Amino acid sequence: MMKRYAIGIDIGGTNLRAGLVSEEGEIVRKIKKPTTEKVFESITEAIEEIRHDEIVGIGLGVAGLIDRETGRVLVSSSLHAIEGMNLVDEIKKIFNVPVFIENDANIAALGEKIGGAGRGFRNFVLLTLGTGIGGGIIYQDKLLNVPAEIGHMSIKSDTEKCQCGNIGCLENYASARAMVTNAVAMLEKGKESLLTECCKGSFYKLTPEDIYSAALDGDNLSRDILRDAGKNLGVGLANIINMLSPEAIILTGGLIGAWNIYVQEAIKEASRRAFKHLFNSVKIIRSSLVDDAGIVGAAYLVFNELSRDTC
Amino acid sequence: MMKRYAIGIDIGGTNLRAGLVSEEGEIVRKIKKPTTEKVFESITEAIEEIRHDEIVGIGLGVAGLIDRETGRVLVSSSLHAIEGMNLVDEIKKIFNVPVFIENDANIAALGEKIGGAGRGFRNFVLLTLGTGIGGGIIYQDKLLNVPAEIGHMSIKSDTEKCQCGNIGCLENYASARAMVTNAVAMLEKGKESLLTECCKGSFYKLTPEDIYSAALDGDNLSRDILRDAGKNLGVGLANIINMLSPEAIILTGGLIGAWNIYVQEAIKEASRRAFKHLFNSVKIIRSSLVDDAGIVGAAYLVFNELSRDTC
Repeated sequence: MMKRYAIGIDIGGTNLRAGLVSEEGEIVRKIKKPTTEKVFESITEAIEEIRHDEIVGIGLGVAGLIDRETGRVLVSSSLHAIEGMNLVDEIKKIFNVPVFIENDANIAALGEKIGGAGRGFRNFVLLTLGTGIGGGIIYQDKLLNVPAEIGHMSIKSDTEKCQCGNIGCLENYASARAMVTNAVAMLEKGKESLLTECCKGSFYKLTPEDIYSAALDGDNLSRDILRDAGKNLGVGLANIINMLSPEAIILTGGLIGAWNIYVQEAIKEASRRAFKHLFNSVKIIRSSLVDDAGIVGAAYLVFNELSRDTC
Repeated sequence: MMKRYAIGIDIGGTNLRAGLVSEEGEIVRKIKKPTTEKVFESITEAIEEIRHDEIVGIGLGVAGLIDRETGRVLVSSSLHAIEGMNLVDEIKKIFNVPVFIENDANIAALGEKIGGAGRGFRNFVLLTLGTGIGGGIIYQDKLLNVPAEIGHMSIKSDTEKCQCGNIGCLENYASARAMVTNAVAMLEKGKESLLTECCKGSFYKLTPEDIYSAALDGDNLSRDILRDAGKNLGVGLANIINMLSPEAIILTGGLIGAWNIYVQEAIKEASRRAFKHLFNSVKIIRSSLVDDAGIVGAAYLVFNELSRDTC
């Protein structure tokens, strides 16, 4: 029997990743490019670039709130250009194959389930820890058909407004954006730190990598910022554990690079907060596919939906 | 064919309810008594009282964290006497029929799905609003096999310790206990209120009903307390909506008596906080079985599990 292939696209605020993936979950070819303002054009160009004669469909993982039934991108704070667009219809028109769409963290969860750190678990939650925080839930081996906007769970309900309209969202206290905002505020107040040198006064150029690197060099401010964000992530982990008691929480995204400070602090905080019995039965681990999870998950969405149609 | 019956028991910190229920969900006989310190004995006495020759099993809905696989009550802040006990094994020994156990809010959700306000929805969340706050999740017509401890989701992560060990739990800011604690604190500070008369200085005797009744009489303190608890409940509703986007949230428990102040405020707050698209697709409604939901759900647990075994 001939091998079948699908294209998986994973697009967030920073990067667009596209891959040609076999039904067995093998990535045959992949590309990555920075997300531009012309989001739709970037997607179609990427599809052209890795297209293959025999693709059975295209799967899209998009950062934002997605109506998977209609194919519409409802809200996307990092991809404004495609907000309100029916991405499924528009891409179908051009490539004339079945097209499916999901939230990017949801398809990353699906990817980890198919070919990554989630293979051994029937029930797990995946969190993407980057500029923002996203979530995807696998329940009894399948993707739970819910938005899982875990980053927009309020954990400090009387504090600052989030860009989503809610107040005190987890994302505002535990993401890369939160760390950088926090660092800049401290530096502007004149707080002493190695970070002052690293960006030579252009605080807006600070990255989470700078903060982590300064923390490793013993910078107290940087360590405090990472620990503080970690503590807040721990509140989110405890909430997930108390509500869903997953077998595992799989962490992915750029911030897991700071595992030994940020994530360790989060695990410690979650252990203090969650019900003991539930905390003791969860494994908090790293993603294994990392950046490829979205591509694999998006392609699998295609195989999954097509096999459902033929049942 | 002969009708089959199961006994459903619903036990919380305040009351024990037991019912003899037919496979069609009809309650043939039921009793209610206050929960005593001798929890286990109260349960067995209630079973004796409504027993029927032909019962196929006993279902238990217990306030607390339950290990449904082993039958053990892991944590129950309102039923300390049975904490750590394997309730399933102990009751099986006496009555010699299949026994199943679940968290009380989970079985109330199941009850509403079978014979109440949840019949028309494939996906909903039930919240029990009483002394504490519990939750149950129905997903694609079935009970989601998770603790759903929504009352122990932290919404004010830097505030007061909850008896569960977490900090700033929803339950501490939106439950009946929260309202009464808040009222007593205000009265002790000498705040003017109709409540001062209603309990003649014995503030510890205050009930949520007193607060609601004073609020209806125009008492400002009481109105503020109800609105404040409602706002906090609204944070919880928004978190549920952003994460699970249910078709409905069904509210039950004593506090829904204060619907027009407390729940209305919660709905208003949730509408401000949740993603608009998701808020617009959820119905926030009252339970229809109310106190019987637990009995029906617990009995249904038996029919459900037995039919699974014979499949």
